[in-house]
Amino acid sequence: MKAAVLTAVRSPLEFKELSTPEPGPGQVRLRMQASGLCGTDLHVIHGTFPVPLPIVLGHEPVGVVEKLGAGVNMLKTGDHVGVCWNQSGCGRCDYCQRQHVKYCKSARSWVQNGGGNSEFMIAEAAGCTLLPENLSWENAAPIFCAGFTVMSGYRNARPRPGDRVAVVGIGGLGHLALQIAKALGHDTIAITGSANKRDEAKAMGADDVLVIKEHAGKELMAMGGADIVLSTSNNMTHNTQLIEGLRNEGRLVTMAVSGDKIELDPMQMLAHQLSVIGSMQNNREDLVEILQLVAQGKVKPKLELYGFKEINTAVERLEAGKIRHRAVVLHNR
Amino acid sequence: MKAAVLTAVRSPLEFKELSTPEPGPGQVRLRMQASGLCGTDLHVIHGTFPVPLPIVLGHEPVGVVEKLGAGVNMLKTGDHVGVCWNQSGCGRCDYCQRQHVKYCKSARSWVQNGGGNSEFMIAEAAGCTLLPENLSWENAAPIFCAGFTVMSGYRNARPRPGDRVAVVGIGGLGHLALQIAKALGHDTIAITGSANKRDEAKAMGADDVLVIKEHAGKELMAMGGADIVLSTSNNMTHNTQLIEGLRNEGRLVTMAVSGDKIELDPMQMLAHQLSVIGSMQNNREDLVEILQLVAQGKVKPKLELYGFKEINTAVERLEAGKIRHRAVVLHNR
Amino acid sequence: MKAAVLTAVRSPLEFKELSTPEPGPGQVRLRMQASGLCGTDLHVIHGTFPVPLPIVLGHEPVGVVEKLGAGVNMLKTGDHVGVCWNQSGCGRCDYCQRQHVKYCKSARSWVQNGGGNSEFMIAEAAGCTLLPENLSWENAAPIFCAGFTVMSGYRNARPRPGDRVAVVGIGGLGHLALQIAKALGHDTIAITGSANKRDEAKAMGADDVLVIKEHAGKELMAMGGADIVLSTSNNMTHNTQLIEGLRNEGRLVTMAVSGDKIELDPMQMLAHQLSVIGSMQNNREDLVEILQLVAQGKVKPKLELYGFKEINTAVERLEAGKIRHRAVVLHNR
Amino acid sequence: MKAAVLTAVRSPLEFKELSTPEPGPGQVRLRMQASGLCGTDLHVIHGTFPVPLPIVLGHEPVGVVEKLGAGVNMLKTGDHVGVCWNQSGCGRCDYCQRQHVKYCKSARSWVQNGGGNSEFMIAEAAGCTLLPENLSWENAAPIFCAGFTVMSGYRNARPRPGDRVAVVGIGGLGHLALQIAKALGHDTIAITGSANKRDEAKAMGADDVLVIKEHAGKELMAMGGADIVLSTSNNMTHNTQLIEGLRNEGRLVTMAVSGDKIELDPMQMLAHQLSVIGSMQNNREDLVEILQLVAQGKVKPKLELYGFKEINTAVERLEAGKIRHRAVVLHNR
Repeated sequence: MKAAVLTAVRSPLEFKELSTPEPGPGQVRLRMQASGLCGTDLHVIHGTFPVPLPIVLGHEPVGVVEKLGAGVNMLKTGDHVGVCWNQSGCGRCDYCQRQHVKYCKSARSWVQNGGGNSEFMIAEAAGCTLLPENLSWENAAPIFCAGFTVMSGYRNARPRPGDRVAVVGIGGLGHLALQIAKALGHDTIAITGSANKRDEAKAMGADDVLVIKEHAGKELMAMGGADIVLSTSNNMTHNTQLIEGLRNEGRLVTMAVSGDKIELDPMQMLAHQLSVIGSMQNNREDLVEILQLVAQGKVKPKLELYGFKEINTAVERLEAGKIRHRAVVLHNR
Repeated sequence: MKAAVLTAVRSPLEFKELSTPEPGPGQVRLRMQASGLCGTDLHVIHGTFPVPLPIVLGHEPVGVVEKLGAGVNMLKTGDHVGVCWNQSGCGRCDYCQRQHVKYCKSARSWVQNGGGNSEFMIAEAAGCTLLPENLSWENAAPIFCAGFTVMSGYRNARPRPGDRVAVVGIGGLGHLALQIAKALGHDTIAITGSANKRDEAKAMGADDVLVIKEHAGKELMAMGGADIVLSTSNNMTHNTQLIEGLRNEGRLVTMAVSGDKIELDPMQMLAHQLSVIGSMQNNREDLVEILQLVAQGKVKPKLELYGFKEINTAVERLEAGKIRHRAVVLHNR
Repeated sequence: MKAAVLTAVRSPLEFKELSTPEPGPGQVRLRMQASGLCGTDLHVIHGTFPVPLPIVLGHEPVGVVEKLGAGVNMLKTGDHVGVCWNQSGCGRCDYCQRQHVKYCKSARSWVQNGGGNSEFMIAEAAGCTLLPENLSWENAAPIFCAGFTVMSGYRNARPRPGDRVAVVGIGGLGHLALQIAKALGHDTIAITGSANKRDEAKAMGADDVLVIKEHAGKELMAMGGADIVLSTSNNMTHNTQLIEGLRNEGRLVTMAVSGDKIELDPMQMLAHQLSVIGSMQNNREDLVEILQLVAQGKVKPKLELYGFKEINTAVERLEAGKIRHRAVVLHNR
Repeated sequence: MKAAVLTAVRSPLEFKELSTPEPGPGQVRLRMQASGLCGTDLHVIHGTFPVPLPIVLGHEPVGVVEKLGAGVNMLKTGDHVGVCWNQSGCGRCDYCQRQHVKYCKSARSWVQNGGGNSEFMIAEAAGCTLLPENLSWENAAPIFCAGFTVMSGYRNARPRPGDRVAVVGIGGLGHLALQIAKALGHDTIAITGSANKRDEAKAMGADDVLVIKEHAGKELMAMGGADIVLSTSNNMTHNTQLIEGLRNEGRLVTMAVSGDKIELDPMQMLAHQLSVIGSMQNNREDLVEILQLVAQGKVKPKLELYGFKEINTAVERLEAGKIRHRAVVLHNR
């Protein structure tokens, strides 16, 4: 099969012909249709998120179930599915026994099974989620990491109808978070460092837009503050400042990774009873919820589409910070 | 294999030699060690809960994994496991996709796979839960239905530390619910129609005992009321009355089945902002929690033990209402 | 002062000249501007909700603070306020000490202080809530009972963004509940027995309308079911049926009073983990929230306006069931 | 009246004869019985928490209602009460209107009214809470700030029965927090920098004690971790470290004030879905709850008692860090 392979750190993906993989017990083989790219791919390519090489990347993959491994009885050939990062836990640890698979330390992902930047991929059957009808391959792909992450971030904020929701970082994750908050009835405010994202944020449903000048938090409070800040930004200075933009009992949800720290002022935290909440992907309920919001047209991923052979162009643009929202590789383009 | 088979409604179980079953894909074969009996078995035997006959009953089964079906990669032979009622969902419906398997309308259980009143049984691997160490077979068995049910009922009550918890019906389910509430720090009150259960309720951790005379609710309120009533009783007159024993914002959780109705007085419900909550088994988190409470000795099932050949004696005593708490069949006794 | 006085059960209100009342300690005198009428007034007039006679009714009163009693330091003359039913607790019972004044058994209301159907009224300062700017007297009045009640009912349902909300009874309370649910982002369904309310329900924000034919619950489920049913209906047959229209983990909130009962089928309650929740007015947070929704134009009371002298006409139409939503008396009309 | 007056920063309190104050509208005069001292008093004395001088300190005061100001109708002379910090809000701001008085920026406290280190004090009637029977003056006093603060911290942690609760800092606040957690059924772990607090922590109900050596968080995790860390410590290095001792979905509640910061590692926060929550005193429900726990003997303040004339000795020992738990001045000693 054709595959785009990372053979060495900081080198372009190489197009190789690999042998077509066979699904093991509990696994399926998918014929890939689309695969999203995100910042984590860059961490892998740069070696800051080390994985064994060579490897096929692609952790937002969608495709058609083509072959069932032994014991798979919940999927059928022909099923349209996507695969999330944590495909299955070990099934034996305390977290798995409690069905908190997200915390399993031996969970299987694309790192063990190979990702979606290839003609076929292997996935744990337990890691596949059926796509709703009326959902295009390209719109589905970025939901399996970016969309899932922000839907969980939103739910982990314990949103209350009527809450004002701010979203920081209107990129791959944030543009989805913003639309989720709007679709579910909130007054929204998009927070960005880029003045040129103002109009598109409005078009995506932001009731207000804050373009950060000096102190994101003070500026947010000057615009009325927020009950919830969903932060997809890895700028920890901004995240630290934004705590000052929270209303009483407000919650800042942090979803991004960084070597920097968020700093909390104890007095400020207690005087307003604020919370800072770390968030990753929850169970599949959140994934299905956002898949349906996209299928219903209430959340619309903004995409740049690339053919499979153009994948290095996509990676280059991602490195250059030129992809405003999300790049998706279409295998049949 | 030896099996106790229900061949006709309202007849004793027949001891038969059946062919040893083979686990299909995703299934395992267990060598049975113990199996609990409960009121639902009587409903099956009486035909009021109709199932296809002949059938092997036993929905509180624990045993040793002996053989793995195709694709099973999370269990090992030799594992000590128990099996809950809902062993696995269809994996495809909206509930299963959201990991709300408890609502799947095509879930597989002992009804399809056969129960634990036999030398071996087949279970979905997904329906097996590993037993904690230091948990005896007999103590484990009744947790897989009775214990799981009441642990979920307790959690569905949204208990707040400091809440006073009443438990109605100090039988197979209730005696576990009472101990759970006590183990987790609540002030408890056992409610029973049987004056002769007073002492044992105290011994199991009841801070107070109410023996119902005329009106369970008024009598409960006279003793200070409860924030939570966990009802394992199928006496809907008592359940209706007990709403009157709830403190403001109190919650009555109903776990039992009956053809009768609970009647709500709208004025009473609103004046005190009361809730009535229906509850069945949640996800496995609750099951693991109570398994650990039992393994730690904080909850102690009270059991009558029977040898496999004595199973009809156990059924007869169950029918006669003579089993105070729980009957468990030990296969190797 | 001029007052409309109920002097005997089941007789018209009499216009009398009463001496202008003086505010006692902790009280204020208001110059009335508007006063809403509701079904509870009929219960008082009919004697089914007995109060000492003669009495001035009017428990949805708004007006201008004209005189302060001793010790009042949080209101000023000239303030525009409304007064809710429970004006202040005893301040001494366990509920009051915990600031759960809604449960105080000695709370003061219009029954002790006299209501708003008069030129002036006395209110506890603690029972007055400042009106937001840009809120007309007539729009404010019905919020102090009808609006407050349904806002609390909505909050007591523990609404989750994304929940589908059904409202039963599109009258004085329900037409506000429907608009609240819509304003806060829910998909809504209005449920009514009156086919002729279909269009106005749509106009008020109902995404769907169910006109009950035979079984409200089965018909609701046929339209997809609801996560929340907010029932303002005193038809307990409908309320009983509607439990069958709840989705898994759904909640029916009952806000109306009736001599009839809601009947719960235990099997149905547990199989879908349903809750029935009684609800009355919570603390003032809910009141302020809906006042602001009305001031922002997101919720628009539908009113019939009457001059003070026309109050008996309003009562007659209320008795005849002719007032579709809410009648408000304007004192200066 | 006799009063201990702070006349200048960093000077001893002076015993003066002041004129006996008269309660204004909505206020009462108390004859003081006891008054607790805490670290905040030092901040005032040192000028790091600036207040207008001269002033009478004492923000944990209990006494007998002796005289009612105008309009006070919920207290009686002879009532035994305590007074919390935030005695009443302005009554007019958005927070007050919503009964979120804790956030009122114009709230009245001992800073305006004078504190309890005097023969009499003036308090807002709204700021007084009746003492349960069977509660001694000395045990009641420290509940009005220390106890209230930690009870709210505990509730703000959203404790779930079964959670393991760690308490950091076993001083004035922490020794109460530890007992609360134990009384309400949790497995507890006391965390302290002082090896010599080990035994008394055990005696107060700690199931385990961690004496910090190098890294509080790693050491806590080595002991099994905690679901909740209630931090009464103003050592922000410890608080930062302790985040690493949280189990999945754990919550660290910070109640202390410091010029230092808590630092959050975004990766750690998200991988375990952790929360850091700022907490101050909530509404009175929490205060009443802990008053009752103390009255029931479930929480026992550990006190050093001083006569009124000995107050400067107490302050000196406080400054020297010699008061292990709480100092209380008894006015009639």
